Amino acid sequence: MPMDTLNCPLSSHYDFQTGQIKPCENYRQIHLSDMRGYYLTDRETSNKPLKEDPLLYEVYERTVPMKPGEMVPCSTIIHPGAVGNEFYMTKGHYHSNANAAEIYYCLRGHGLLLMQQGERFAVETMKAGALIYVPAGWAHRSVNVDTEDLIIFAIYPADAGHDYGAIREKGFLKRVLRGPDGAPVLREES
Amino acid sequence: MPMDTLNCPLSSHYDFQTGQIKPCENYRQIHLSDMRGYYLTDRETSNKPLKEDPLLYEVYERTVPMKPGEMVPCSTIIHPGAVGNEFYMTKGHYHSNANAAEIYYCLRGHGLLLMQQGERFAVETMKAGALIYVPAGWAHRSVNVDTEDLIIFAIYPADAGHDYGAIREKGFLKRVLRGPDGAPVLREES
Repeated sequence: MPMDTLNCPLSSHYDFQTGQIKPCENYRQIHLSDMRGYYLTDRETSNKPLKEDPLLYEVYERTVPMKPGEMVPCSTIIHPGAVGNEFYMTKGHYHSNANAAEIYYCLRGHGLLLMQQGERFAVETMKAGALIYVPAGWAHRSVNVDTEDLIIFAIYPADAGHDYGAIREKGFLKRVLRGPDGAPVLREES
Repeated sequence: MPMDTLNCPLSSHYDFQTGQIKPCENYRQIHLSDMRGYYLTDRETSNKPLKEDPLLYEVYERTVPMKPGEMVPCSTIIHPGAVGNEFYMTKGHYHSNANAAEIYYCLRGHGLLLMQQGERFAVETMKAGALIYVPAGWAHRSVNVDTEDLIIFAIYPADAGHDYGAIREKGFLKRVLRGPDGAPVLREES
């Protein structure tokens, strides 16, 4: 088979249970130290050393040609936990290309998908089987609100680009906090 | 939540076991009568009435804006069976937009993904967890080679377009037949 002449990623295995993609060219771990200032309790103290540096989430992405018509398959594994009372979450971003949508398919766990465009805000529940369309132009962030891994398969156009700046500076309009009974509570960003 | 103002598909449920997407705007069934002349044993007799008209496969597709940067989430359920000794398969097609790739993620069952570009041919095995990238410019066809449903999640650019003509006229370079022991055998198209 002349598969090796195709010069692009082909067969790999994506495990429903662990969220691992193998083989995979691009794997990264995001620790709390990679997100200083994102969490409410860390906002004022983000210039001080951390007492501990937990692993918050992991990302697997295949490498594809970076041009229109190509798409990136991606797995995100958000571990269970909270920083203070704020559930572990991804950084969240807009796409640089405002025409680029994204597809989310939740394979395992329980989470919330936050979306916003300027002052408009929306939230969708993610459980195994949830298939969610992130409209072009909307920022998105995933939050694990349960006690097991949250595993999400996402696909975005290869020319989408990632703009983390606006969210890093202003955050989302709402934060997801762990309420007294353990359930998630949305709180307006102050 | 102002979700109803997004004017595009949002939350739906995609069942791993059945392959059904609900809600879904675009659902279709493909019977043998929709594929007259595709199968080897039906090639010479495709102008005669069918004795029976089995359901070969089903497709669920969400409706999204048809422009660059948008993507269509799609589920294909190929039932087990054969026409003569030729396993049930999809029609197969090229994308009209030669830059448009496609991502396949097999959720259940056992199948083969045939790909070709002109005289180049490739095949990948589909089992639960197989994540396969169909390169831009390559025709693709799925074949169920087992005795249970084959369920595939696919994502393609909304502006990909479908060109069924070349495959309908000439077929793929190889057919997938059921061998004496029930296992699939690739046979060169004559």
